[in-house]
Amino acid sequence: MQKQAEYSEAIKTKYPEQVVIAIARDKIGKANPVTLGWTMIVSGSPSMMAIAVASRHYSVETIRHSRCFTISFPSSDMADAALFFGSKSGRDVDKFAEFDCATEPAKAIDSVLLCDAAANFECTLESETIAGDHIIFVGKVVAAHTNTEAKKRLYTVGPGHKMGSAS
Amino acid sequence: MQKQAEYSEAIKTKYPEQVVIAIARDKIGKANPVTLGWTMIVSGSPSMMAIAVASRHYSVETIRHSRCFTISFPSSDMADAALFFGSKSGRDVDKFAEFDCATEPAKAIDSVLLCDAAANFECTLESETIAGDHIIFVGKVVAAHTNTEAKKRLYTVGPGHKMGSAS
Repeated sequence: MQKQAEYSEAIKTKYPEQVVIAIARDKIGKANPVTLGWTMIVSGSPSMMAIAVASRHYSVETIRHSRCFTISFPSSDMADAALFFGSKSGRDVDKFAEFDCATEPAKAIDSVLLCDAAANFECTLESETIAGDHIIFVGKVVAAHTNTEAKKRLYTVGPGHKMGSAS
Repeated sequence: MQKQAEYSEAIKTKYPEQVVIAIARDKIGKANPVTLGWTMIVSGSPSMMAIAVASRHYSVETIRHSRCFTISFPSSDMADAALFFGSKSGRDVDKFAEFDCATEPAKAIDSVLLCDAAANFECTLESETIAGDHIIFVGKVVAAHTNTEAKKRLYTVGPGHKMGSAS
């Protein structure tokens, strides 16, 4: 049976929620990762994925500048990296310089991949749409990569950025 | 370590993927539910959620007609309903007439809620954007509901529409 509730209460049923790390270079060439829970696949053919990024976040500038970005599925043992990349601003710090997280160059776009992720998707910017306090960026997947080892994906499993695997 | 892969292979790391059932009335007033895995929250203030619906699906017509829709988080014991609503077209059948699934009227929009869902969100249509072979519909949440019992959300846990809970 349903009872009407505040949105903030009802949305607590969303967990586990998938985590991605989106990466784009800024105008000085610095690769800037940001951790996002608001993401979905949006098209099968061609393959496209979307992310929602807070309008005021530095990542918006980096994606608009690069017009391409990586969507990385961090593995379940990358919770610390995800928390770090999600809690700092690329306006203030070089996140990859401050947190030890192995990267390698992307193949089809000017960005980087996360070596230890479960998968990485290289995307070219297809469109952007304002939605409230966020921007929806849609990317067309132009290259994909998986980990040579079997890796589980990272999820937010409960309120307060509690992270882990989900199965 | 990463290895380049086909998108179809790399995207298999996405599981578990959340499931929602979106519901909108068509022009004759029939409430039409569709099961979707491609969905995300897109705005915090105001609260907004997005769904990606295949362009050719009947649900596109129903959402454009109603300009509002319910996003329901089915509970983990609603796999059969989710499979049914995801495998039939509202062009051909009245899904709620053919599959026994309790509904009740929405409060703020002209749609219905799923009584046994973990949560229901009533949305007014905010925008639509074409993305490849799908349409992204953004809805502003105007009312929310939770289940009076603690319910786990339904997920697709593996290829072939394998469904269950995730924790």
